[in-house]
Amino acid sequence: MPSSPDTAHLSLAELSHLLQRIFLGHGTSPAVAQVLADNCARAERDGSHSHGVFRIAGYLSSLASGWVDGQALPVVEDVASGFVRVDAANGFAQPALAAARALLVEKARSAGIAVLAIRNSHHFAALWPDVEPFAEEGLVALSVVNSMTCVVPHGAQRPLFGTNPIAFAAPREGGDPIVFDLATSAIAHGDVQIAARKGELLAPGMGVDSLGQPTCEPKAILNGGALLPFGGHKGSALSMMVELLAAALTGGNFSFEFDWSQHPGAQTPWTGQLVIVIDPSKSGGNSFAQRSAELVRQMHAVGLERLPGDRRYRTRAKSLAAGIPLPTAELAKLRELVI
Amino acid sequence: MPSSPDTAHLSLAELSHLLQRIFLGHGTSPAVAQVLADNCARAERDGSHSHGVFRIAGYLSSLASGWVDGQALPVVEDVASGFVRVDAANGFAQPALAAARALLVEKARSAGIAVLAIRNSHHFAALWPDVEPFAEEGLVALSVVNSMTCVVPHGAQRPLFGTNPIAFAAPREGGDPIVFDLATSAIAHGDVQIAARKGELLAPGMGVDSLGQPTCEPKAILNGGALLPFGGHKGSALSMMVELLAAALTGGNFSFEFDWSQHPGAQTPWTGQLVIVIDPSKSGGNSFAQRSAELVRQMHAVGLERLPGDRRYRTRAKSLAAGIPLPTAELAKLRELVI
Repeated sequence: MPSSPDTAHLSLAELSHLLQRIFLGHGTSPAVAQVLADNCARAERDGSHSHGVFRIAGYLSSLASGWVDGQALPVVEDVASGFVRVDAANGFAQPALAAARALLVEKARSAGIAVLAIRNSHHFAALWPDVEPFAEEGLVALSVVNSMTCVVPHGAQRPLFGTNPIAFAAPREGGDPIVFDLATSAIAHGDVQIAARKGELLAPGMGVDSLGQPTCEPKAILNGGALLPFGGHKGSALSMMVELLAAALTGGNFSFEFDWSQHPGAQTPWTGQLVIVIDPSKSGGNSFAQRSAELVRQMHAVGLERLPGDRRYRTRAKSLAAGIPLPTAELAKLRELVI
Repeated sequence: MPSSPDTAHLSLAELSHLLQRIFLGHGTSPAVAQVLADNCARAERDGSHSHGVFRIAGYLSSLASGWVDGQALPVVEDVASGFVRVDAANGFAQPALAAARALLVEKARSAGIAVLAIRNSHHFAALWPDVEPFAEEGLVALSVVNSMTCVVPHGAQRPLFGTNPIAFAAPREGGDPIVFDLATSAIAHGDVQIAARKGELLAPGMGVDSLGQPTCEPKAILNGGALLPFGGHKGSALSMMVELLAAALTGGNFSFEFDWSQHPGAQTPWTGQLVIVIDPSKSGGNSFAQRSAELVRQMHAVGLERLPGDRRYRTRAKSLAAGIPLPTAELAKLRELVI
């Protein structure tokens, strides 16, 4: 792959392999290392920098703290014809999803809809990689995950909710799936961390400081402050729904329930995740993928230039052609983490 | 019921009966009249004025135009163990839901999750009355319905989406269910109509005029203007999701697809509706209703005074105690509509 003095370019396989070795050397099983490395490399490939290699330090810190079990074996329970439950056994959510995925798809195709309830899990990644593959198989998928107390409910004084993202994916004929992944906070926590690292100010309306006063200073948000929900009471209602679906409905912790104070360095929220998968071939009328392609055509016809997900697909295409760009200093740091 | 010279007070049964007679006299079947009257009376009872008796004129205008079939017999199709489809046969969505409801609940309890896809339907009411009863039975419900082109997608120039509400209901131990119903537009269309009628200005950020310029004037929005999505690109993504779930997945029309120009007076959008019902008794851990009660306790503990839905429950309690208040002039107008 071509490289400049400041920027290296890696293939997806190269980056994934490097990250896999890092995870393996820091206490995960080979299976967990593979799932997390692939997830993280794909995020970096697509330009989701806040969930790419930027996250490695947090993963390793959490693993070192003993807070999350990198060797956990998820326990899949076949509960009903449309309901799969997984106890992630204090491991990461992505291996739990991987363990239940085939059963979930089989149920969705047979019953028309199926739900996967993951509990006792740590989700520290972007959510779109969890739903996009379903759309690639012709299925519609919706997922929610709660995280850790950092968002003040609309009308409240102190934080309670997590950033609580909602991700959705749907197949589209003749094009990439329609995929979005949105934090129900006004900004994702990772983006606040990145702004703090760069010394940049945030737009107004993103968060409050430790006294509950509005601030644009990312460090004030991170040091005892909190985020606000997006879209006022509506985003706040959706964030509450995510708590109910991802925690109450799975048997996982609410964002405010876990106590990691005995695990200095812990960063991964110990909560739950819900995934709903629908088989659109059961619906009436024309093929779903044709219909979603029609919706996209009409969105462009009214002047929309960029669909949700388009930036990821464009960055992905560039990365596939020229390699995934990484600052050479960052790559050197990663290589030092290989044990 | 007590009444002042300006305000009459009706019981739910009295108002529902009056509305039923109005619907019956304007071309609906007895079954449809009963469902719509009950829905509309409950909205008025709970203070959802934009979806209460305010809507009667629009219902009657649509029925008179021949655009919607007030006698339609919904056709229920049992597609799979978790999938029910209904062809509303160009009738209203609420009778279609009523026709499929028992089968949907049976499937949700058996499979753990089930979906109802209603197409060829007209939804002209609030969405929370569709989901709240599921929570009263201990189930979790999510519903979306698309409507008619009046919302400019974020980043586009012209309207395409409907107001596309999302409603959610969940049981709660020792209290009313947790229910919200939110338009993915910055404001509900009915509230713009009410503001226009009252001559009030809207808050900034709600809509644009016929030239696509921001405006606070409700009449400018209604006369060739359009609404904006709530919460920028995030609300816009959710509105797009509603189009995909309520139209593409049901076999119904997108908000921009129907042409009512040959039916002057038509006001009811001819689209689709999706309802997802989950049985939380299938989940791991403690009882869902206990868990949701715990979430509510913690929301109050961080300073939240009013939960989504609280205003409706409080108004409902007042209406149950003292009757549903209606201006006597409005009541007189309603009585004139009885044929």
